[in-house]
Amino acid sequence: MKYIGITMGDPAGIGCEIALKALKNDEYRKKSIIFGSKEIVSHFLKLLGINKDINVINDISEFDEDKINIVNVVDLKLNDFQFGKVSKICGDAAYRYVETAINWALDKKIKAVVTGPLNKEALHLAGYNYDGHTEIFASLTNTKKYAMMLWSEKLKVIHVSTHVSLRKACDRVKKDRVYDTIVLAHDTLKRMGIENPRIAVAGLNPHAGESGIFGNEEIEEINPAILKAQSEGIRVTGAVAPDTVFLKAYKGEFDIVVAMYHDQGHIPMKLLAFDEGVNITVGLPIVRTSVDHGTAFGKAGKGTANESSMIEAIKAADYFD
Amino acid sequence: MKYIGITMGDPAGIGCEIALKALKNDEYRKKSIIFGSKEIVSHFLKLLGINKDINVINDISEFDEDKINIVNVVDLKLNDFQFGKVSKICGDAAYRYVETAINWALDKKIKAVVTGPLNKEALHLAGYNYDGHTEIFASLTNTKKYAMMLWSEKLKVIHVSTHVSLRKACDRVKKDRVYDTIVLAHDTLKRMGIENPRIAVAGLNPHAGESGIFGNEEIEEINPAILKAQSEGIRVTGAVAPDTVFLKAYKGEFDIVVAMYHDQGHIPMKLLAFDEGVNITVGLPIVRTSVDHGTAFGKAGKGTANESSMIEAIKAADYFD
Repeated sequence: MKYIGITMGDPAGIGCEIALKALKNDEYRKKSIIFGSKEIVSHFLKLLGINKDINVINDISEFDEDKINIVNVVDLKLNDFQFGKVSKICGDAAYRYVETAINWALDKKIKAVVTGPLNKEALHLAGYNYDGHTEIFASLTNTKKYAMMLWSEKLKVIHVSTHVSLRKACDRVKKDRVYDTIVLAHDTLKRMGIENPRIAVAGLNPHAGESGIFGNEEIEEINPAILKAQSEGIRVTGAVAPDTVFLKAYKGEFDIVVAMYHDQGHIPMKLLAFDEGVNITVGLPIVRTSVDHGTAFGKAGKGTANESSMIEAIKAADYFD
Repeated sequence: MKYIGITMGDPAGIGCEIALKALKNDEYRKKSIIFGSKEIVSHFLKLLGINKDINVINDISEFDEDKINIVNVVDLKLNDFQFGKVSKICGDAAYRYVETAINWALDKKIKAVVTGPLNKEALHLAGYNYDGHTEIFASLTNTKKYAMMLWSEKLKVIHVSTHVSLRKACDRVKKDRVYDTIVLAHDTLKRMGIENPRIAVAGLNPHAGESGIFGNEEIEEINPAILKAQSEGIRVTGAVAPDTVFLKAYKGEFDIVVAMYHDQGHIPMKLLAFDEGVNITVGLPIVRTSVDHGTAFGKAGKGTANESSMIEAIKAADYFD
């Protein structure tokens, strides 16, 4: 498959702008379809001085390589909303862009969905009580086992848990869950073209517990999960001390680190790949990558937003077959 | 005060070597005293081709600026031990170097103690059942409230807890303890010459709890500690999201970050200042800085060890009056 869907995100944010900036790259433009609103795309093309026509499509057969291809999911007008403001109409539009893109992906018309940033409050105002994209994708694709991968060229991290308190994150460090995350890491990197990925599993505790002195999760949960995965031929090492494993991976010793909780993985990613971080939801029947930042309402509509993360999200999506 | 004491660490490790390499810098040599064993120092001077005489002293009055000044705490001989091997005799010597240096510091003969790396197993074989330097210093100076600061020129972190399981670290996030750590950060940086240090306090939970959705410690413990410190005129901000606070500090927005647990602070430090990290035990009546690595038994005795962290530890010690 070739085509990549890009959702515009909340129209009041920077999503449309960074998508169009990213599509100044011809290689990406020739395989991308924006799921959004035609008038907003048209507005930003002018604002950014991008001299390309829009081609509104309803099916892949209508794709035109010389134009900016969009699915006009919601015929939203510029007068319907204000940049930088939370609104129900924008929350509703943002949800429907995502929903339509997911359906195209499930129908195998596109190989991946790259998502622009949502505003959670707007989403809730519109009656969609999701925490964010991940939950929408999981719900609309009936997926139970999924995980958040943070991806950059030099460091990749997958999380055993993400948006829960640190105490609950400790509770979620269970053999089955750690094992499932190792397998998701392995399968995803294989799909992205790494034949036999080298996986490191971080410990939960300082020094990976130092033989049980600083906690037992490594002995009771993490190491058994590693042994099980190893017995199935997965190239996995650990539990590695959390404060050294990310540098080892960054230097090339491992292809990915399995992090035990949100900040264990997010702290190193934000430091080492601040503008280049891509969020990949793994375990879904479809591919979803995302920018690793929010709607940036303060910058919205001004033409000054940084498209680096969007470019990386498209690049990551393109690694998939 | 002027003089800095440097303990040799476990004689079987790299401590003596990196100390002598650091003292190739004349400025540091002219104010440093090695607490160790004369024959070992003599051996490494030859091995490293350093053309300096040794001056064994028993008091500051005997200090000679043109020489390598040492207190010959234990008259250990090269034949008494093997490089790279754990032994009782080395554990005992290492402990006594530290003990003597602490006494000189308590007597105000030296302004700081810079510690070379210990081997915990050797220490225990010699009958000293301490976890490491920090516990020795706390015990010999009768100190109850202390914390571990990781120091580098560009990033400084202080920890609310360190060598405990992550679950126990969550339990230790209490208002009084967080407040005490903020005050220790403030007082220490002031002593190091930063007039009104800007302190950021990291949250415990992802996104600093996101208003209580992912945990209550920020609301119940951390924020009240911050308010109390602010009411006393301390320049402190938070709770800041753990995955962005270190980059903000690194870029210059804050002078130090109060981390809630070992890896929250150690992960960013090891990434941003791998060879330059210095460990400072704060809250003691004396100053103690330390290299941020172990004995490196695998490299011991070969003359190939990297002295960067030792140089930084001396530099950090020298910031104190």
